[in-house]
Amino acid sequence: MSDELKRGLESVLVAESELSYVDGTAGKLVYRGYDIEDLARGASYEEVLYLLWHGSLPAPPELAAFSDDLAAVRGVDEDVLATVRTLADGGERPMAALRTATSMLSAYGSGEDEVLEQGSRVTAKMPTVLAAFERARQGEEPVDPDPNLSHAGNFLYMLTGTEPDPVSEETFDMALTLHADHGLNASTFTALVIGSTMADAYSSVAGGIGALSGGLHGGANQTVMELLYTIDDSDKGPVEWVKDARDEGRRIPGFGHRVYEVKDPRARMLEEKLRDLAESSGDGKWLEYTTAIESHLDDEGLIAEGIAPNVDFYSGSVYDSMGIPMDLFTPIFAMSRVGGWVAHVSEYRDDNRLIRPRARYTGPTDAEFVPVDER
Amino acid sequence: MSDELKRGLESVLVAESELSYVDGTAGKLVYRGYDIEDLARGASYEEVLYLLWHGSLPAPPELAAFSDDLAAVRGVDEDVLATVRTLADGGERPMAALRTATSMLSAYGSGEDEVLEQGSRVTAKMPTVLAAFERARQGEEPVDPDPNLSHAGNFLYMLTGTEPDPVSEETFDMALTLHADHGLNASTFTALVIGSTMADAYSSVAGGIGALSGGLHGGANQTVMELLYTIDDSDKGPVEWVKDARDEGRRIPGFGHRVYEVKDPRARMLEEKLRDLAESSGDGKWLEYTTAIESHLDDEGLIAEGIAPNVDFYSGSVYDSMGIPMDLFTPIFAMSRVGGWVAHVSEYRDDNRLIRPRARYTGPTDAEFVPVDER
Repeated sequence: MSDELKRGLESVLVAESELSYVDGTAGKLVYRGYDIEDLARGASYEEVLYLLWHGSLPAPPELAAFSDDLAAVRGVDEDVLATVRTLADGGERPMAALRTATSMLSAYGSGEDEVLEQGSRVTAKMPTVLAAFERARQGEEPVDPDPNLSHAGNFLYMLTGTEPDPVSEETFDMALTLHADHGLNASTFTALVIGSTMADAYSSVAGGIGALSGGLHGGANQTVMELLYTIDDSDKGPVEWVKDARDEGRRIPGFGHRVYEVKDPRARMLEEKLRDLAESSGDGKWLEYTTAIESHLDDEGLIAEGIAPNVDFYSGSVYDSMGIPMDLFTPIFAMSRVGGWVAHVSEYRDDNRLIRPRARYTGPTDAEFVPVDER
Repeated sequence: MSDELKRGLESVLVAESELSYVDGTAGKLVYRGYDIEDLARGASYEEVLYLLWHGSLPAPPELAAFSDDLAAVRGVDEDVLATVRTLADGGERPMAALRTATSMLSAYGSGEDEVLEQGSRVTAKMPTVLAAFERARQGEEPVDPDPNLSHAGNFLYMLTGTEPDPVSEETFDMALTLHADHGLNASTFTALVIGSTMADAYSSVAGGIGALSGGLHGGANQTVMELLYTIDDSDKGPVEWVKDARDEGRRIPGFGHRVYEVKDPRARMLEEKLRDLAESSGDGKWLEYTTAIESHLDDEGLIAEGIAPNVDFYSGSVYDSMGIPMDLFTPIFAMSRVGGWVAHVSEYRDDNRLIRPRARYTGPTDAEFVPVDER
């Protein structure tokens, strides 16, 4: 046994995977060899799920069957909706509500025991649960899923009760694709560790949601958005605000990533979409703020040092421009990343090995026990 | 970056810890330096929780305050009990129900944000949730927790509606102590990975329950018990049954452990307790079966090869002798191990680092994208 401590498991290779590859130096991300830009522009989220789960891009009949199967199981049992309503009424945070409701879905399976079968059910139902939660918070009844809409379009429909316009649906679909997988990040790794015990996919997904809810993982796009609103409420411009914050030693959220040394390709694509949304709505404020901050930090040399904009820097303003409440950003991230969680667990099962590292014990080994009444 | 693949992270040191140490060669387990045998015999589960969470064994006034605080928050919101009832009525498996209900508890916190505060609430409430689930399955109303009983005694009381006899309470308390911590096993590591993102303790515990539900982790004591019942229903004696099964190439559950090369010290203690229970009840069947199987496998040379009885080999028959249903064995394991999950996450937070390993990418890097209508 090597006695070197691998803090954070940085650079430790725990598995082989054909699912996604990040070239942090070139700013390139591929899913099974396909460049993320091609997929984001040319493939739907359903195609990406098929690619991740089944190994190749689907031909039209395969895609139709796959999408139909997914759409057919979007509905959620009334008992789950009742718990979702209770959680919304009790003021539960959306990620925690999603974790609980997703965990509860396992009671309403159809006895499937394969990771992909369970995983496709949970992927199909997460948007339903999340939209019902948001509507319950607004005092509204849930909207039944519409099997004729795409995964992205149906979520926006269930959220608002209105079919989305094509630009919103396309943008949201692209955001789902961009977030679907990203190597062994903390939530995917959580799903994998859980899956390695042969636990069911509901356990893996509930664990993944838990990990993603942490401030060091999925919460960053919300933090960026809060920053933009804080700047907007202040009497400073975005550059002045960021300059002052950095002088006070504060870190600017949405910049820097353990893997990327250059601008995250997902950030590039979402910046484009933010531009489209700004043009179609005529409201360019967030675009102006984000590009000004990025350009300022570039001038300051941060980007040259590898502290470049990551996906979270742009995704928040894209969702906000679509009218989505801030505290749903991370749940939407989960609703997309579930595709990657399921894919990784399924792939790992082909050559499964229980994941069980060690801790270096630094405590005493022979403490003398004294019974409580003599202490 | 080393390019060596660390399958299962075997022997990889991911953190330093003062919590527990397993000497697999000597068959020794310590919590913060105290031998597990001393703790199991001389300390209550509450003392062990205090030790794991606060670093030392409590003096009497500290123990009294700690136990009172824990007992004071055993109650569970009626909404959670309603969901538990729904899950029981729907036939949900106990570990899945526990995962969902524990996740749901986060909606009813009191705004605590420290790991130990959240962790002590969830530790206090898990027995309440589990007992309510079991009673609901039996068509019975839940029994309110009794703050005057110990953690172990109160669980047995809530399960049956009757205060347990001293032997049962002591045995159950010992079982909780024996299962409270065991280094970075898969469920504890899951809790740690989730906690490393700064997610709340409910997320870590729900993830831990998910991992523990897997057949390669927490389910083994139930599997052993099923084996004993299978043998009992067959027309073979235990040794003959095991001999035939091994001739057919089947593995006998409850033997062998990734860490122990000799008999697990927890198995030794539980074997003693099984002996006590057999003597007090006059029913020595499981004791006879387990000792006969162990002795046969010893004769066959397995124990000399390091395939020795582990904790699961004896815990099942202990619980069964106490009248506890088989499918509650793993949830009871969770109800104990939560102490270790919380302790590890809390300790890790003192010098937190996001846990994010890598996968070795083995797929293509430049697949050519073809739009769906041209496929």
